Amino acid sequence: MTVRIAIDCMGGDQGLCVTVPAALQCVAEEPDAQFLLVGRSQDIQAALDRLVRPMSTPGSGRPQSGRLEIVDAQQAVAMDDPPAVALRGKRNSSMRIALELVKSGRADACVSAGNTGALMAIARFVLKTLDGIDRPAIAHMLPNEKGGSTTVLDLGANVDCSAEQLLQFAMLGCALVSALQARERPTVGLLNIGEEVIKGNEVVKRAAELLRASGLNFHGNVEGNDIYRGTTDVVVCDGFVGNVALKASEGLAQMLAGFVREEFTRNALARLIALIARPVLGRFRHRVDHRPHNGACLLGLRGIVIKSHGSADAYAFGFAIRRAVEASRHQLLARTESAVVPLLANLAGRPAEASAGAL
Amino acid sequence: MTVRIAIDCMGGDQGLCVTVPAALQCVAEEPDAQFLLVGRSQDIQAALDRLVRPMSTPGSGRPQSGRLEIVDAQQAVAMDDPPAVALRGKRNSSMRIALELVKSGRADACVSAGNTGALMAIARFVLKTLDGIDRPAIAHMLPNEKGGSTTVLDLGANVDCSAEQLLQFAMLGCALVSALQARERPTVGLLNIGEEVIKGNEVVKRAAELLRASGLNFHGNVEGNDIYRGTTDVVVCDGFVGNVALKASEGLAQMLAGFVREEFTRNALARLIALIARPVLGRFRHRVDHRPHNGACLLGLRGIVIKSHGSADAYAFGFAIRRAVEASRHQLLARTESAVVPLLANLAGRPAEASAGAL
Repeated sequence: MTVRIAIDCMGGDQGLCVTVPAALQCVAEEPDAQFLLVGRSQDIQAALDRLVRPMSTPGSGRPQSGRLEIVDAQQAVAMDDPPAVALRGKRNSSMRIALELVKSGRADACVSAGNTGALMAIARFVLKTLDGIDRPAIAHMLPNEKGGSTTVLDLGANVDCSAEQLLQFAMLGCALVSALQARERPTVGLLNIGEEVIKGNEVVKRAAELLRASGLNFHGNVEGNDIYRGTTDVVVCDGFVGNVALKASEGLAQMLAGFVREEFTRNALARLIALIARPVLGRFRHRVDHRPHNGACLLGLRGIVIKSHGSADAYAFGFAIRRAVEASRHQLLARTESAVVPLLANLAGRPAEASAGAL
Repeated sequence: MTVRIAIDCMGGDQGLCVTVPAALQCVAEEPDAQFLLVGRSQDIQAALDRLVRPMSTPGSGRPQSGRLEIVDAQQAVAMDDPPAVALRGKRNSSMRIALELVKSGRADACVSAGNTGALMAIARFVLKTLDGIDRPAIAHMLPNEKGGSTTVLDLGANVDCSAEQLLQFAMLGCALVSALQARERPTVGLLNIGEEVIKGNEVVKRAAELLRASGLNFHGNVEGNDIYRGTTDVVVCDGFVGNVALKASEGLAQMLAGFVREEFTRNALARLIALIARPVLGRFRHRVDHRPHNGACLLGLRGIVIKSHGSADAYAFGFAIRRAVEASRHQLLARTESAVVPLLANLAGRPAEASAGAL
């Protein structure tokens, strides 16, 4: 099955220097995928020329040209554009055009390393949310001790969530894990400050009730450390909490990496030891490399949207593109719709209860 | 100045096996401190006898006996006792008696590794909160990249905070940092999901307004990674968010420590490399050892209460005791009162505004 991925080539801290090489790499590695490179066509062409010419022997042409297409978009959303400016003031931005390609069905998914707020606002406006989903959520697959990954959502799209929204996030997260990790009935944990049922605020307590009655494979409350323990496949939380947890983790990882670097370069002996320990340190570095985890999913939309980290390099951005390919290939959207509909029907049986929980 | 510390000897996962050796160590290291060992007197005596006899030469007696006193308390709060059970059903618990020693002025501070919910409930009941403080908060000093520490609160005592409470936490955190780190005007960051003023939920936006008008040294919004960057001396957040961020960090640190261990024991060569790298790994391990950071402060009470991690060993519990000694020696309570009163007077000028923010 051929999948078509629209790439916002102008997004991210580095723009074309990252997005175009990553796209070319994916062309080579994903023979069933086509890529629509969206952005200033003259700049994309120049970037392609720089990369392709030295690789090709004279007269060999571009073997991948049939699977790479440039789609012109003369505007670009800046990393610090407020969502409203990006949405209303830049109708020809690469981000907007890439999302419109998904909307029109010319692309199966869109990938962008651009500004998250703008991407979320434009994606909601262009694609709309699925029936029964109030607002989209950002889901990320974080590595866990078990060697797998824990899908956490929401990571910042929604700062005040109702119990119903947390339930919707659980449905969306389960559909994602089913599609990308081929799990039949993923387990769901509700992020809380203790495992006991009495813990947490009113929204979380009510969300636990909804989850227990939802038909999902609900494990119960989990705590912050369970994300990295891999206690459940999916961890559901308010976007404020999720964002803080994710960024605190990033900060801690950076601090620890800095300490390792400092200790192994402290003096000549330490540097010699680093040289000897290189194979072990290399394996460790490979294991904790966050780049293969790049590519958060904006879930709940009528289209597949993958958000790369803004500071991703080409290697990391390639993983975000591959996530879009995988999500398209495994029909994430159709799976999500077919998973969410029966759960919503189940919920619809008790609307009074459900609305009482919207605190 | 002599300070007297009441130690709940029965609290924590290990109880006496941890608390008594730690207390003895502190007797040796803190010549100006007296320690009241609270718990089952016969068991404490037996634990002391086991530890002291082998160390003393015959007839030398106990040099520290004048600074160690046993206070009998026949009940113990279990790690899984609900706060209400601990509060109402165990009036002779070591935790309760230790807090009452602070209340009566016989002790300057209390240290417990017991169950957090029970400690908070009993401490509030016995000691009461300071004027102008709605509820106590849990503050922890986390290590940062700068080699110092960032004081984060609340870490779980309050799951739904008003903007006023966040302001109160900022005042309490600043008083703590002033007392323990001798900082004149500690900087305060408000934990949020972006640095921009427009970010966050209504409570956080309102708290930022209050903080800007408070007279505190308010830096503005900070994000999760700023905790470990050391951007500000104090980071203020809702207890739900703070608890999740702390536990996610713990989980990540454990996962990474596990990866290091696995890579350095993977095969004979890796184990040999570990042996060679021992001095460097040892320094790294020393730098990331969380035990010297043990000892969270329950702030906002009319008494100094230090909460040790339940799983602390004697070395870690010793740091919690030393924190109590330091806080008493630097008169944390008096400093907190004198810092909070003028700030509250400042706030009292606009009660209507303030109450409008209590969402």
